[in-house]
Amino acid sequence: MKDVDDLNLPTFDDVIAAHDRIAPYIHRTPILTSEYLNGLTGADLFFKCENFQKAGAFKARGASNAVFGLSDEQAAKGVATHSSGNHGLSLSYAAGRRGIPVTVVTPRTAPQAKKDAMIGYGARVVECEPSTSSREAVFAEVVAETGADFVHPYNDPRVIAGQATCSREMMEQVEGLDAVIAPIGGGGMISGTCLTLSAIAPNVEIYAAEPEQADDAYRSFKAGHIIADDAPVTVADGLKVPLKERTWHFVSNHVTDILLASEQEIIDAMLLTWQRMKIVIEPSCAVPLATILKNREVFEGKRVGVVITGGNVDMASLPWMKN
Amino acid sequence: MKDVDDLNLPTFDDVIAAHDRIAPYIHRTPILTSEYLNGLTGADLFFKCENFQKAGAFKARGASNAVFGLSDEQAAKGVATHSSGNHGLSLSYAAGRRGIPVTVVTPRTAPQAKKDAMIGYGARVVECEPSTSSREAVFAEVVAETGADFVHPYNDPRVIAGQATCSREMMEQVEGLDAVIAPIGGGGMISGTCLTLSAIAPNVEIYAAEPEQADDAYRSFKAGHIIADDAPVTVADGLKVPLKERTWHFVSNHVTDILLASEQEIIDAMLLTWQRMKIVIEPSCAVPLATILKNREVFEGKRVGVVITGGNVDMASLPWMKN
Repeated sequence: MKDVDDLNLPTFDDVIAAHDRIAPYIHRTPILTSEYLNGLTGADLFFKCENFQKAGAFKARGASNAVFGLSDEQAAKGVATHSSGNHGLSLSYAAGRRGIPVTVVTPRTAPQAKKDAMIGYGARVVECEPSTSSREAVFAEVVAETGADFVHPYNDPRVIAGQATCSREMMEQVEGLDAVIAPIGGGGMISGTCLTLSAIAPNVEIYAAEPEQADDAYRSFKAGHIIADDAPVTVADGLKVPLKERTWHFVSNHVTDILLASEQEIIDAMLLTWQRMKIVIEPSCAVPLATILKNREVFEGKRVGVVITGGNVDMASLPWMKN
Repeated sequence: MKDVDDLNLPTFDDVIAAHDRIAPYIHRTPILTSEYLNGLTGADLFFKCENFQKAGAFKARGASNAVFGLSDEQAAKGVATHSSGNHGLSLSYAAGRRGIPVTVVTPRTAPQAKKDAMIGYGARVVECEPSTSSREAVFAEVVAETGADFVHPYNDPRVIAGQATCSREMMEQVEGLDAVIAPIGGGGMISGTCLTLSAIAPNVEIYAAEPEQADDAYRSFKAGHIIADDAPVTVADGLKVPLKERTWHFVSNHVTDILLASEQEIIDAMLLTWQRMKIVIEPSCAVPLATILKNREVFEGKRVGVVITGGNVDMASLPWMKN
């Protein structure tokens, strides 16, 4: 573990700068509420709808902050990342808006629709085998060849500062929140939430919600050090990646608790949200509601901000149809 | 055809009164926009999201206006209707809010989920055979037995005045609209739109969108008199019913044109809306977007209000999965 001083952690000043920088390229997404879900949970829930965000996910915030913070010289060489999901899509979106090269290394097994969407934003998609060793080898080649700047999906101070703008908006949009809850995978959104709330609302509780079948953050939190799993299997496919040293710093210092939900509870909460709120959300964003329904005593009577992280769903394959 | 004076048509004063009456029981639904769909159509589209309305559809407006306009004496005897869909659900919702009896006559073949939802709002559901003769016989029994007030799904002045509050809100929410488009079945939403716009914005064009396979309103409009089909078959199951004399009055006097879309065009537009706007909409509400995509020359360069009429969808059976 590196010393904190070596981590180059973002500060709340970086969040303010990020917000100014990305404002022209992102949506200030709305807050939705549901009397039905409030009745069901006994809490007042405020859903921050990043499923309506550019590129369909909160990751457009961090990616835009990284891309638009580059010097012209670095920008000319472009950016690169490895991702089969929303970060690759968001980085492609942001680079497309700036008009600079972007390469995304993606497993050849990733959905073609995601690759097509990246290409639609102007990305070059380079396929690798679905293994860590292949991904790292292919990615190293890309960087050596292009000189592109590596924008990590979450363990990057620019990305964390960008994601932190989401909870900053939420605090402006909703008065008197007692708690905020978001899903946790690599920890980018939760770290941004910790960064913002520790600066401007340190009494607001921060909960992270995680699938039981990918509970490495939960076990890390209880053990006091990072535990990474090799290949967890969960319907919440945005939440399979492990914490890294920067996100671990925020999680270990500022998170109130990490709560777990089973696969069936996640699918039920996803379906409930589609049916009752009439919004399209990914399985990953259903994990917070699943844990709120399961831990009524934690949230009852509280005003709770719930981050809906994204809405990029394969409409031909919905999880409740697989049972 | 009755004389116009016999139709007891609602006026814009009735719309203002309806809006005051129902305000505590309905949502002032938001307007959403999509840069992607604007780019695709060449128009500026403003989606009025009645899928977020109480009971999941605009019909909560008309039903609430009918229910909360009743005298205490009539209210004590309750209300009744025949509907397998959103009107039955909305009338159940409104009656539940006022705490009065409500009976809905529904074909025994209607989805159990819809019946359960009505019962959840406090309705008594009475089943009939899926034929007009059975429905009329069973409904007559219900009214004779209870003395309930019949709230027709659309051919009722109180219902039309209630639906008219939707376009009144839209005109307050969006400046400078050139046109409004909504789906047409029995014509309740379109009649309300005609009522409001003819009073406060007579230069705004009014388009009705209809499935090719249930094009009775289109053929009525071209023929100059009501043509009713017996049992049209379309994925847009909210749009199978025919015009009646009150809605025909508004359609024949104020609609600019009626545009048609095929089943596949409707399904494609529905899927496109779910994927790009991340909202859950019914097949019926995809018909306007389908006709806008098909008739680019009609809408290009215009500011167009698009009524998203409802979001009550059977999530276990989505039309693009049936191909």
